[in-house]
Amino acid sequence: MGHSPIVTITTDFGLEDHFVGTMKGVILNINPAAQCVDICHRVSSYDVLDGALTLAMSYRFFPPGSIHLVVVDPGVGSSRRPIAARSRQYRFVAPDNGVLSFIFDREEDIEVRHVTAAQYFLQPLSNTFHGRDIFAPVAAWVSKGIGMDQLGSLITDYVRITPPRPKRIEEGLLAGTVLKVDKFGNLITNLSPVDLPELSSGSASPFHIAIHGHKVTRLYSSYSMGQPSELFAIWGSSGYLEVCRNLGSAADALQASQGSEVNVAIG
Amino acid sequence: MGHSPIVTITTDFGLEDHFVGTMKGVILNINPAAQCVDICHRVSSYDVLDGALTLAMSYRFFPPGSIHLVVVDPGVGSSRRPIAARSRQYRFVAPDNGVLSFIFDREEDIEVRHVTAAQYFLQPLSNTFHGRDIFAPVAAWVSKGIGMDQLGSLITDYVRITPPRPKRIEEGLLAGTVLKVDKFGNLITNLSPVDLPELSSGSASPFHIAIHGHKVTRLYSSYSMGQPSELFAIWGSSGYLEVCRNLGSAADALQASQGSEVNVAIG
Amino acid sequence: MGHSPIVTITTDFGLEDHFVGTMKGVILNINPAAQCVDICHRVSSYDVLDGALTLAMSYRFFPPGSIHLVVVDPGVGSSRRPIAARSRQYRFVAPDNGVLSFIFDREEDIEVRHVTAAQYFLQPLSNTFHGRDIFAPVAAWVSKGIGMDQLGSLITDYVRITPPRPKRIEEGLLAGTVLKVDKFGNLITNLSPVDLPELSSGSASPFHIAIHGHKVTRLYSSYSMGQPSELFAIWGSSGYLEVCRNLGSAADALQASQGSEVNVAIG
Repeated sequence: MGHSPIVTITTDFGLEDHFVGTMKGVILNINPAAQCVDICHRVSSYDVLDGALTLAMSYRFFPPGSIHLVVVDPGVGSSRRPIAARSRQYRFVAPDNGVLSFIFDREEDIEVRHVTAAQYFLQPLSNTFHGRDIFAPVAAWVSKGIGMDQLGSLITDYVRITPPRPKRIEEGLLAGTVLKVDKFGNLITNLSPVDLPELSSGSASPFHIAIHGHKVTRLYSSYSMGQPSELFAIWGSSGYLEVCRNLGSAADALQASQGSEVNVAIG
Repeated sequence: MGHSPIVTITTDFGLEDHFVGTMKGVILNINPAAQCVDICHRVSSYDVLDGALTLAMSYRFFPPGSIHLVVVDPGVGSSRRPIAARSRQYRFVAPDNGVLSFIFDREEDIEVRHVTAAQYFLQPLSNTFHGRDIFAPVAAWVSKGIGMDQLGSLITDYVRITPPRPKRIEEGLLAGTVLKVDKFGNLITNLSPVDLPELSSGSASPFHIAIHGHKVTRLYSSYSMGQPSELFAIWGSSGYLEVCRNLGSAADALQASQGSEVNVAIG
Repeated sequence: MGHSPIVTITTDFGLEDHFVGTMKGVILNINPAAQCVDICHRVSSYDVLDGALTLAMSYRFFPPGSIHLVVVDPGVGSSRRPIAARSRQYRFVAPDNGVLSFIFDREEDIEVRHVTAAQYFLQPLSNTFHGRDIFAPVAAWVSKGIGMDQLGSLITDYVRITPPRPKRIEEGLLAGTVLKVDKFGNLITNLSPVDLPELSSGSASPFHIAIHGHKVTRLYSSYSMGQPSELFAIWGSSGYLEVCRNLGSAADALQASQGSEVNVAIG
């Protein structure tokens, strides 16, 4: 294309410190033509599933050819492997801890390698900041055009995690959980249209959602349909069922958070 | 110029989630040459006036030709219109809720359109994330050079909001309000030099400002003129009168916040 | 190289306001080819030492030729001087308050100038936002290629600050302090390998660290060596001794913060 190769960055490093800036310095030092784009740096600390969800909700909106660098790395300095993956449209660099699990599920023809080519790491190599010393430089070299096969051998035993799955308690009763609370206090559940076909068709069945002692009985198609202080459900831009308030925080109203139980009864 | 077209982004999306990163992915996917620059993503949630103020304080410092994308959108999914505006030097993409009000006041020869050209939207179109599905792609297409007239028809009934105006209670007594508290705890009021000519000339008249039971009687020209723990007023870089402390937070000292009353007595 | 000149930005402006975005607008307005990269904007308010540490931990990872712009400026509007510095590989623009102290210590052949060339400032010049009106435009002009000698005269009496140094209380007993707490709650002390040669060799001597009534007796080489809830020391990526927990916050566990005492007894 002649355009700058894009390296997206997703971490749990926060913005209080120099960490993310330093990783960008490393990338630009190796490939001055790279274009770094932040997806999010406020993944919950050490929370691999939260990192995996964040990446999953965003990566497909980037141009084909983008390199997605993800550093949520509770095992830094241990024997967990650095990996690089290639799908038809994207490449990924991350620790082998499951943070790419949704990518493995959704992308076809994915190829995963254990990154062992230490000539692409910074030296001296710390045991505490592989974002700087391993993942950023490897992503930069990939953006510069080195072949994935130069990074290390293909592997198939990479780590996959599965988000908590809703459980069918009995006919018409489904037990789910809150995966994530967004900035507006919307509660993103683990319930997808496949789990709740009754609520995803044009004419939804009667239902109620029990969460923290409250009942939610309305499914709306936009936030603005909600009355002041009303709690309702919505199929969110995340692809999951969300429990929401219009112009307010459902999380605050319900004192709910990541991990809160969400029971859905149909009919 | 041959330089990358700049798309500035101002939202209330925060940095906790993937939202802003995803918008950048959408923009770069449509126009890989675009250069995204964050103005601020911590506009108060749903606060159109705060978004309007944030944009107003920043937009003119960007190069002519820049596209300003603003998504503070409490009406997402309702019938509120997406709009695009053009002034002599800039273009703007935003929801039609007043978030461009200061632009309408300050820019001459402004032309506003109701964006209806759905071929520039992402498909499928969500009802909950128009930042991703409408505003980002429209801004990207504008940065790529499509004409404003391709977006939709000219309108003149776009929404304008007016910030709370100071009231003259009696001769020499003016009632204002705190519009915004900045990161340092400076209280930005709605009082401008036009409202207080007595304080904006070289030799200021005696005055006092009553706020939350305290009196402020000094007008300084820089923060560093303040003594430790002293409260004083200053004509801030915002263009408004600010109540400040040197190396400390006036908001904390006064327990004041957005909406706090500020009464100014002259003489 | 033909690549965009990099301007890194480090401030205490936070991300709540338009400040950083506006500085980028100013830079791009002067030099549309510049590439702005954030190092960190959450330096503690007015904390020159914190700004100096943040820059010190990051600047060398950027490509030679990068311009480092630092605005932690408690003296804005006073007579403190704006300065520009050049080392062999980098250029720096900052207030003359010590925020470049680590640069002065570490870089050879450094040349420092008092920036007086007002033609490179924005007009009108505020007394309250020199990040926008002086430092950003000067950095932009430097990125555009003006000579350092056009900015002002060489000076040698620039301000240097020294971080609190550890004190040797008696043979084998060293009193240090916490310089900074990072996002993960790691306590970065002011103890470097030079201060503690006993702990920096391959086989460390027995030791204990007393901090807030607790004793830390283990030195690990990676976070992942720590047991759940165990407190330990590590030589961090900062180059300093850090007190840490694996997957948890040492700061929370110890109720420690910037300035907390850290006493190390050897043997």
